[in-house]
Amino acid sequence: MRWYVVASLLTVLTSSQGILTTLSQSNGGYKYDYATVPFLAEVFKLLVSSAFLWREIQNSPPPKMTMEWKSVRLYPIPSIIYLIHNNVQFATLTYVDTSTYQIMGNLKIVTTGILFRLFLKKKLTNLQWMAIILLAVGTTTSQVKGCGEASCDSFFSSPVQGYLFGVLSACLSALAGVYTEFLMKKNNDSLYWQNVQLYTFGAIFNMGRLLMDDFRSGFEAGPWWQRLFNGYNMTTWLVVLNLGTTGLLVSWLMKYADNIVKVYATSMAMLLTMVLSVLLFSFKPTVQLFLGIIICMMSLHMYFAPPSTLVDLPLTVKPVTESVSEVSVERKTDS
Amino acid sequence: MRWYVVASLLTVLTSSQGILTTLSQSNGGYKYDYATVPFLAEVFKLLVSSAFLWREIQNSPPPKMTMEWKSVRLYPIPSIIYLIHNNVQFATLTYVDTSTYQIMGNLKIVTTGILFRLFLKKKLTNLQWMAIILLAVGTTTSQVKGCGEASCDSFFSSPVQGYLFGVLSACLSALAGVYTEFLMKKNNDSLYWQNVQLYTFGAIFNMGRLLMDDFRSGFEAGPWWQRLFNGYNMTTWLVVLNLGTTGLLVSWLMKYADNIVKVYATSMAMLLTMVLSVLLFSFKPTVQLFLGIIICMMSLHMYFAPPSTLVDLPLTVKPVTESVSEVSVERKTDS
Repeated sequence: MRWYVVASLLTVLTSSQGILTTLSQSNGGYKYDYATVPFLAEVFKLLVSSAFLWREIQNSPPPKMTMEWKSVRLYPIPSIIYLIHNNVQFATLTYVDTSTYQIMGNLKIVTTGILFRLFLKKKLTNLQWMAIILLAVGTTTSQVKGCGEASCDSFFSSPVQGYLFGVLSACLSALAGVYTEFLMKKNNDSLYWQNVQLYTFGAIFNMGRLLMDDFRSGFEAGPWWQRLFNGYNMTTWLVVLNLGTTGLLVSWLMKYADNIVKVYATSMAMLLTMVLSVLLFSFKPTVQLFLGIIICMMSLHMYFAPPSTLVDLPLTVKPVTESVSEVSVERKTDS
Repeated sequence: MRWYVVASLLTVLTSSQGILTTLSQSNGGYKYDYATVPFLAEVFKLLVSSAFLWREIQNSPPPKMTMEWKSVRLYPIPSIIYLIHNNVQFATLTYVDTSTYQIMGNLKIVTTGILFRLFLKKKLTNLQWMAIILLAVGTTTSQVKGCGEASCDSFFSSPVQGYLFGVLSACLSALAGVYTEFLMKKNNDSLYWQNVQLYTFGAIFNMGRLLMDDFRSGFEAGPWWQRLFNGYNMTTWLVVLNLGTTGLLVSWLMKYADNIVKVYATSMAMLLTMVLSVLLFSFKPTVQLFLGIIICMMSLHMYFAPPSTLVDLPLTVKPVTESVSEVSVERKTDS
């Protein structure tokens, strides 16, 4: 499968995630415990990856599977980073309002580019750096509050701690992505074996989170496993299935493409969600959404288009001078 | 003088024009007739150009001056286009509100690119096209009304005639620029001789406009020449001087650089004016201004930076394969 097919699929599914989550609400709230969704999605991913791994093991040659503790112990690290990230996000929101928080979230596009360069040693051209900055600017533009919208706090009026936590949050989010890419590419182990390790730890950490919530609330509603499917309906199951599938696609991209492709897919998904919201929930279209889409499309083209289609390459210069020198040499020998 | 020095100077002076015009107001209105400013600016440009032309004529070799009617008759055309443009602008404003009008004004960046390509046959690379679109998007982004601002009409709610007149206005503005460039470059006449022709007609058309205003008001305030300097103070004279100087710089750019350089200079000036307004008049800085500046800076770099600094050019590919084939030929003759 080509990476851009997977990336397009990821865009569509990530965008449906927003729509489905909105549809799964009733009277503006969730009837079910939202924390159960990522846990069940981890379980779903684990089951699918195990099934694929099982099929691979039946075939010959058997898949490559590194089982040493030295390798396995690296797989909980993304879950640990996400755990820290969640707490930093929580801390950020005590300092800044939600719209400033949302706008700062776009910083992770730039931090992903930086960590991608630093840790994975991938070189980007200046044009690609500009494209990455423009992608962040484009998504931010689409989110600028228009006039007449409810929250009207100024972006520049939060305490400095809020911005520092926002930057830290963007760095952690990027680190988790870049680390996962490093993990998936560090050897040619079977993708499904890598997934099984990743999602086993993912499921455990999500279980831990549910248990923590229970302790915090003093087991008022009973332990999490007794109320796991409470309030679930068809749409909720679709949310779980969709989140699980996007996770599997991200894993695939981390192994066979890279973090930048993932960042483009999820950014485009955000814009697609906004367009779908205009069409489905009759949101008012804004000029800034329109501008944001143009900027991101330009950025996409700048990053991925072959340079020869963007600029005039002076390709013929060198060969021409060489053939000229050859001719002059021939003439010399003639005379 | 290098074109980017002139362009930078144009940026600074165009931006001061906005600030000076604001400073020349008293109690939110003009004490003087604003229509006299462009007329006096035309006279100023005519005097300066005549003086320079006079100096050129004293020197040898004398400047090249085409005096045939066939050539001279082309010089009122920019003034005529601007006259039509002013009326279309007026018509546009009867259909759309001022903020929609302002946003549509950025369309002239794109129309200038298109007419520049079509009429002056200048080729632009795909990256340069993208840069031009981004420049228009960037200036528009900086103008998006933030929440809490006075006028709150939706951009998409004006009658269709408003948008059509807006597009026509953008085309006429671009046409005037492109036509002037054609005029200035069509032969190697002295710049000052070309200016003298251009500004003579400019002064005449502006006089006509003042006379028209007088007829419209039934000569209530007397004929224009009797009240020409009414309400003028030091700042008003600075406005005239500044407008005249920017006009001379634009003429220079039309002859020795091009319309796209001018469009970049005036767009950057708009952003600089907004930044200066934040500093001088303590306007509230908005996220959209910040985003607009980043987008326009990226656009500037994309348009003017040498392609080799933006992308990795595959320059070495061809020579390498050639030398390999040479080696194999040598081996053949050896055996």
